[in-house]
Amino acid sequence: MQIAIVLFDRFTALDAVGPYETLGRLPDAELVFVAEETGPVRSDTGALALMADRTLAEVPAPDVVVVPGGPGQFEQMENETLLAWLRAADRTSTWTTSVCTGSLILAGAGLLEGRRATSHWLALDFLKQYGAEPTGERVVFDGKYVTAAGVSSGIDMGLTLLGRIAGDEHAQAVQLMTEYDPQPPYDAGAPHKAPAHLVEEFRANSRFALM
Amino acid sequence: MQIAIVLFDRFTALDAVGPYETLGRLPDAELVFVAEETGPVRSDTGALALMADRTLAEVPAPDVVVVPGGPGQFEQMENETLLAWLRAADRTSTWTTSVCTGSLILAGAGLLEGRRATSHWLALDFLKQYGAEPTGERVVFDGKYVTAAGVSSGIDMGLTLLGRIAGDEHAQAVQLMTEYDPQPPYDAGAPHKAPAHLVEEFRANSRFALM
Repeated sequence: MQIAIVLFDRFTALDAVGPYETLGRLPDAELVFVAEETGPVRSDTGALALMADRTLAEVPAPDVVVVPGGPGQFEQMENETLLAWLRAADRTSTWTTSVCTGSLILAGAGLLEGRRATSHWLALDFLKQYGAEPTGERVVFDGKYVTAAGVSSGIDMGLTLLGRIAGDEHAQAVQLMTEYDPQPPYDAGAPHKAPAHLVEEFRANSRFALM
Repeated sequence: MQIAIVLFDRFTALDAVGPYETLGRLPDAELVFVAEETGPVRSDTGALALMADRTLAEVPAPDVVVVPGGPGQFEQMENETLLAWLRAADRTSTWTTSVCTGSLILAGAGLLEGRRATSHWLALDFLKQYGAEPTGERVVFDGKYVTAAGVSSGIDMGLTLLGRIAGDEHAQAVQLMTEYDPQPPYDAGAPHKAPAHLVEEFRANSRFALM
């Protein structure tokens, strides 16, 4: 089984590394980071680059496609090279997945029309413009399409998908080895839980607010 | 404020990316990935490389030091270049931190003697050999020394430290933007919660079991 995680300029690193650290522990799977060109790809903060080891062209038919999000997603929604690759890869994939605003890239490729999906909470309504049906859930399965909410939700998505592919016990073993027993110091990880003025500020300053 | 995250061959990627994605959102901070040499550094699975943008020598006195863990930690505990850098950086750091078995590297540098600390659950007892006092907590503060448990706990550590440095509201804002509202599909993320036979198998096959 081949798992391809797509990188692009100004992606959010944890969007990609959550699924990597969980799904990547699938026995006998080949996980590969892909981008238009090989070499370092910078994340949204500029302080981190992950290496793309293979080009999109070199990995035409992965079994699992993972698309992260991040501010660079806006440009990717108009990147015909990536969109065409996604449409082609999706024709033979077993699972087509995204984390955060990666779902907007899938939607932009026309892959989420009529499907239940999720995204970063700030981008959720934007999915409707592409005919998808946004939900407030953290991990959404609709057939072979699996979308996750913002950034850290890729860990939950990765474990859930790992359970479907390799069985509950294998996923539990990965949860145990990654010691994923979360104890956040605050309970502010969703818009209905966080201080209301923070949610308002983010909404007012979001690029999505202009659309 | 300068934050240095140390990379070394066969580190665990999420150990480093959890603190990056949280602490790296500190306003006016410079976060930099460092290693003995600049260039790509491969993670434990071999499927991912993160770029080290600066050498250890180029970043002699960061305010915050973050040491991830991973199977490569064993060699690093005998790497005098890294140990000497850690001892020197620790003399002027505001916070000296680790995730997972990164605490063993700090311990190997002599920095955790007589201190309360934590590590990956499989490595916890091993801390005693270096005079540290292992705890079962997920994030442990002892003065300026902050250690986190296995892999994913670096997210909790990063948010907690961010709160100390920049205030609760800033940390809550980062939690909201990374949508860190964890919903693991299983409750198997700690040895007292996971199926007992999985815990036994990992203990029996661990390199720590031989020590």
